[in-house]
Amino acid sequence: MGPQAEPRPGESGRGALALSGAAAVTAAAAVAGLLANANHFQSAEMATKVPQAAQETETETEEEGDILERCRGFMASPVTDVRVLQERKDEMSTRMEMLIMETQADFCKALEKVDGGKFKVDQWQRKEGGGGISCVMQDGKVFEKAGVNVSVVFGHLTEEAAKQMRSRGKVLKGKDGKLPFCAMGVSSVIHPKNPHIPTVHFNYRYFEIEGGRCKQWWFGGGTDLTPVYVNKEDAFHFHNTLKEACDEHHPQYYPDFKKWRGVFQFVKSCARTVVPCYLPIVYKHLNDTFTDEEKDWQQVRRGRYVEFNLVYDRGVKFGLATPGSRIESILMSLPLTARWEYMHEPAKGTLEAEMLDVLRNPKEWV
Amino acid sequence: MGPQAEPRPGESGRGALALSGAAAVTAAAAVAGLLANANHFQSAEMATKVPQAAQETETETEEEGDILERCRGFMASPVTDVRVLQERKDEMSTRMEMLIMETQADFCKALEKVDGGKFKVDQWQRKEGGGGISCVMQDGKVFEKAGVNVSVVFGHLTEEAAKQMRSRGKVLKGKDGKLPFCAMGVSSVIHPKNPHIPTVHFNYRYFEIEGGRCKQWWFGGGTDLTPVYVNKEDAFHFHNTLKEACDEHHPQYYPDFKKWRGVFQFVKSCARTVVPCYLPIVYKHLNDTFTDEEKDWQQVRRGRYVEFNLVYDRGVKFGLATPGSRIESILMSLPLTARWEYMHEPAKGTLEAEMLDVLRNPKEWV
Repeated sequence: MGPQAEPRPGESGRGALALSGAAAVTAAAAVAGLLANANHFQSAEMATKVPQAAQETETETEEEGDILERCRGFMASPVTDVRVLQERKDEMSTRMEMLIMETQADFCKALEKVDGGKFKVDQWQRKEGGGGISCVMQDGKVFEKAGVNVSVVFGHLTEEAAKQMRSRGKVLKGKDGKLPFCAMGVSSVIHPKNPHIPTVHFNYRYFEIEGGRCKQWWFGGGTDLTPVYVNKEDAFHFHNTLKEACDEHHPQYYPDFKKWRGVFQFVKSCARTVVPCYLPIVYKHLNDTFTDEEKDWQQVRRGRYVEFNLVYDRGVKFGLATPGSRIESILMSLPLTARWEYMHEPAKGTLEAEMLDVLRNPKEWV
Repeated sequence: MGPQAEPRPGESGRGALALSGAAAVTAAAAVAGLLANANHFQSAEMATKVPQAAQETETETEEEGDILERCRGFMASPVTDVRVLQERKDEMSTRMEMLIMETQADFCKALEKVDGGKFKVDQWQRKEGGGGISCVMQDGKVFEKAGVNVSVVFGHLTEEAAKQMRSRGKVLKGKDGKLPFCAMGVSSVIHPKNPHIPTVHFNYRYFEIEGGRCKQWWFGGGTDLTPVYVNKEDAFHFHNTLKEACDEHHPQYYPDFKKWRGVFQFVKSCARTVVPCYLPIVYKHLNDTFTDEEKDWQQVRRGRYVEFNLVYDRGVKFGLATPGSRIESILMSLPLTARWEYMHEPAKGTLEAEMLDVLRNPKEWV
């Protein structure tokens, strides 16, 4: 997940973040056996073809509450008209859109509270269909740059895109070769000022194709941490919080996962760990003092972050290559500032060298 | 050429640098009709199959001087052993290696003179064959980061690479499917401290494949300028200097270009304009005063430079994807520092807005 999960080709291990936890997805693969491992969209193969009627009549044991009431707490109106959401409240796409809006609002509010600043909220539309809400806080007291983005886009898959998807697995055939699709997600990157507060990134997403009376869909996502300095407690807290969310979806729940709602419940649990994963770490280091040298190291690490983000991150590459995508919303994940020093190498025995060592030799934190 | 030549897909015109002059290559295409336009390697189609004997016995009207003598002025020993260069002094690969070493030395020395600092010189080897010389000056008095890199790599094309090349045009077939190749070039990006001194980038390169008794080869390259503020005089000077180099190779010399040496002479002229293109501009603005706001604008423009460099620049993408490439030498083109502001837009009527306008609406400067 995220810009940190893959080592730079040709430089084995360098920059691969051990602390970056794709814990959510890994656990999904291990526990539920439903989410494929490393593709852009984690495919929920076992639940792909659900007759629409079954989806819509399925009774929910746990109700999420009134749509209109929940919308009041969001950063902006959802992309889909509220009346449409109300009419289709039991559909997966509605439940996911509500979840990503809620995740955005919860996270933004928690960040505003610790920073004291306010997010700038931009609603935008995609002329090909759909739109999004970008929330950005820049040059705050605690956060140098914080971005939390929701997007909900829809339309018809081009023949090219459908072909590409078929090459990666089974995809339904639509009428007249036309495949209506819907893609949505919430994603965020937070760059704090203090080098002792790590950068966090998360992304939870949903992709749906309609083919006649059936729907085919994918869930994906994860949360990862990019520290500037090693802190074992933080690493434990972060991974353990995610692990607990995963553990709720125990192997013995497996039969339940064969139903589509099991997967959504799992994604929901993961999305809801975002605040408890990150905010305790922010508060803990809020008043840590730091030296100019520590700030420099943060800037150099950010240079690597930008490199991964722009060169290797599939989400960013996919976004930039998508017609009609909003580039400012994709690139809001870049830090406000960064630095590239030729042949930078921390002195032996320093905390900076310790960080690199952990990056090169991944550890188990939980 | 370079990171600035292409507009960002999906945002028409935004960030496309009018001042970025691929003048050298454009002129080559127009004047000589030999260099194909937009491929990674500009193909010199009309001169592809030159019997080796003809190359080696061709007499040079203009002698470049003693190899050993010329090597004394270089930043480091050439990648190829000097005795080998002496034995093969009339071969194209030797003449090009000498040219790129000379270009590196001339440019580095001119920059050292104006800055007062010294380049750090790193010789490196590629285990698959060849190596290079990276010269970097960081945090100098005039230059925040200056990199000038030479690389000379060789080996056998993989079947995959040969196939890819054949799909883009004719490529010789080697014995047993093995195709010995040699690729070399000089490239440089200079990021000055003063926002009134523009960033410059150039790259001149040569690629050769041996297939039996014949050689097939490509030349490519160009020089471009990335200003932070519009300066018409600078733009004129830069383009005019390149134009003059191009004009030496007048349409009426066309018959001459059918011979391989004509193309090399043209590349040589272009490579030799690097110092006269850039250094007068550096000297002119050396003592310009600048405000914090002007420095900020430079940082934001650098953010765009990093984006183009990592997302779109073919040279960088090709380099990062090449097995055994030296990543530090590829990424030395990144500025020391940069900045990304969400939805940055200069106020109407400012010099910053004027710069953007020129980027969005390319001009003819000469």
